[in-house]
Amino acid sequence: MTDITMIRAAAARLAGHARVTPLLNAPLLDAMAGRRIFVKAECLQLTGSFKFRGGWSAISALDPATRAKGVMAYSSGNHAQGVALAASRHGCPAVILMPSDAPTVKIANTRAYGAEVILYDRATEDRDALGARLTAERGLTLIKPFDDPQVVAGQGTTGLEIAEQARAEGVAEATVITCCGGGGLSAGIALALEAEAPGLTVRTAEPKGFDDVARSLRAGRIERNAAATGSICDAILTPAPGALTFPILARLCGPGLVATDDQALRAMALAFAHLRIVLEPGGAVALAAALFAPDLPDTVICTASGGNVDPATFRMALDRFAD
Amino acid sequence: MTDITMIRAAAARLAGHARVTPLLNAPLLDAMAGRRIFVKAECLQLTGSFKFRGGWSAISALDPATRAKGVMAYSSGNHAQGVALAASRHGCPAVILMPSDAPTVKIANTRAYGAEVILYDRATEDRDALGARLTAERGLTLIKPFDDPQVVAGQGTTGLEIAEQARAEGVAEATVITCCGGGGLSAGIALALEAEAPGLTVRTAEPKGFDDVARSLRAGRIERNAAATGSICDAILTPAPGALTFPILARLCGPGLVATDDQALRAMALAFAHLRIVLEPGGAVALAAALFAPDLPDTVICTASGGNVDPATFRMALDRFAD
Repeated sequence: MTDITMIRAAAARLAGHARVTPLLNAPLLDAMAGRRIFVKAECLQLTGSFKFRGGWSAISALDPATRAKGVMAYSSGNHAQGVALAASRHGCPAVILMPSDAPTVKIANTRAYGAEVILYDRATEDRDALGARLTAERGLTLIKPFDDPQVVAGQGTTGLEIAEQARAEGVAEATVITCCGGGGLSAGIALALEAEAPGLTVRTAEPKGFDDVARSLRAGRIERNAAATGSICDAILTPAPGALTFPILARLCGPGLVATDDQALRAMALAFAHLRIVLEPGGAVALAAALFAPDLPDTVICTASGGNVDPATFRMALDRFAD
Repeated sequence: MTDITMIRAAAARLAGHARVTPLLNAPLLDAMAGRRIFVKAECLQLTGSFKFRGGWSAISALDPATRAKGVMAYSSGNHAQGVALAASRHGCPAVILMPSDAPTVKIANTRAYGAEVILYDRATEDRDALGARLTAERGLTLIKPFDDPQVVAGQGTTGLEIAEQARAEGVAEATVITCCGGGGLSAGIALALEAEAPGLTVRTAEPKGFDDVARSLRAGRIERNAAATGSICDAILTPAPGALTFPILARLCGPGLVATDDQALRAMALAFAHLRIVLEPGGAVALAAALFAPDLPDTVICTASGGNVDPATFRMALDRFAD
C-alpha cells in the first residue's frame, strides 16, 4: 500500500526526469471567482499530463532484469503516452494495447514516444485476454493506470510539490480539488498532503453523471457508474474507484464535487484567457469546480491534470465561452 | 545604462512577486524540428507576458515619494497590463493612455488590474502631448516600454532564469532566440547571459517586413521600419530599436532572424499541441524561428514572450495549422 515514504522515494527517482510544474494563478480569475484559485499545471508535464509521473515511478521501481523484458499498458489516452515515454527513457520496450478507433493523433504520438502499439477491435476482441497472452508470451510487466502502489506514489509527487508551492505562496489552509477518474492522482496527493501540509484537504471533482467517486464516498463503499461513455471528459470516465485508491480517498477526502461538460468547457476558455494554458475537458473539471461549485473556502488549489485535447474540442470551448 | 549588477538587483526586488516561469520542451517537437528546442514560457508570467518584470523593476526602483504620486504608461497591450498590475501591487496609482480603438478586452483588463485608463483618439489627438500634460499636472513618472535602464534590468531577470534552467538541463552551449520589438527583453537577456552563461548567445527574431533590428544589426546603426502596421504580430511592431537597447544588441547578438506571419501561426498551433501553452503571434516568432530558420545549432532556447491573444486569432492558428 502506498504511503508517504513510497511517495518520497518516487520523488527521488523522478528528480531530473519529470518536470516540476508551476502553481499558477491570475488576479482577474480570482476576481471573477470571488476566491483565490491556484492551478497546479500538470498539462505542462512531459506528455501533457500527470500520467508520466506514475509511469516513471512504476517503471523505475522494477528490478533491472524485469524491466529489461518490457512493460505493457492498456490505454487510449494519457496513461499510454506517459508509460511510452517513461519506458523509452529507461531504454525498455513498451507495448501499448489501444482500441483501433482511438484518435489517430494519440496512436501516432504513442508510437512517436517509442512504444509498440498493438491495435484491437473493441467490438470483436477481448482486450484483457489479448493483453494477458502478450504479457505471458513476452514476459512483460503490466503497468495499471491507477490501482498500483507505485503508480499512486508517482502521482503523489504532485502533492509534494503542491505542499511546497503553497507554502511559498503563504497558503497554509485550502481545499485542494483534484480531477478524478480511478483515483490515483487524488489518493497520491491526499497522502502527500496529509504528511506535508495537513491544512490542505482534498476534494475530488468528476463529470456530472460519472460521479462514481462522489457516490462511493457518500455510501462508504465502491459504487460504479451506470454508463461508460457520454461526457466529453474522456480522460476520467473510469467505471469505479480502485480497490487500492478508494480506502485512501475514504479516509482523507471531503465530499466529492461534480462539474458539467459545459462548466468544463467554460473552465478551458477561462484557462486560455487568464492562465494561457491548454486544458482537455477531463483536465479542467477541478478548475470548473473551483470556479462554479458552492460553499468553497476563500483559497482553492486545483489540479489542471491534462492538456491532450483535439483542436475541434478546444475550438468548441473558445466558440462557446471565450469573449 | 543597464548592467549585470542592475539585473541582479532587479531579480532581488522581483523575488516572490514575479513568477519564475518554466523552461519547457517536448520530445515530439524536437523530433519534428530535428533539434532540441527549449521554450522559456513567459506567457505564464503574471499578466501574460514578460512585461510585468520590467514594470515591477521600474516601479520598485522609484523612491517612495515619487512612486506615491503615480506612474504613467502609453500602451495598448502587454506593457499596459504589466505596469497596471505592478503599480497596483505597490499601492501606487497608474494612468494608462490607450487608443480608443484598442481591443475592449485589453482596456477592460488594464482597468481590472487597477489602472486608470484614459482613452484618446488616434486620429485627432496627440498622444505624447496629452501624456506630457498629464504627467506634469499629476507629477506622474513615465514608465517607457523598453528604453529605460530599469525596464531592461527587469526583462533581464528572464535571462538569469534561463542561465540557471539551462544549466539544470545540462545545456552549456546554445543559441537563445528572443522575440524582439524595441529590444528591452533581448538586451536584458543578452546582458544576463554574458555574465552568467557565456555559451548561450542571443539572436533576435522579428516579423517579416518589420525587421528593423536585423537590419540595424547588419548596418551597425539604428534603422527604422517602413510601415507601422501590417503583421499579426502586433506586440512587437516597434518602429526601431531603442537608443539604450541597440548598443547592447549590437555588442552581444548574432544576426537577426525573421519569421513570417504564417510561421508564427504554425508555431502557435505546435505550442498548443506539444507544449500546451497559449501564445500570441508576437510571442511565437522566436519559436517559429527555432523551428523553421536554417543554420541553427543542435540546441536552441527561445522565449515564448506573451500569450495575450484574442480567441479569433487563436482559432485561425488552429484552423489553418493544427492536425
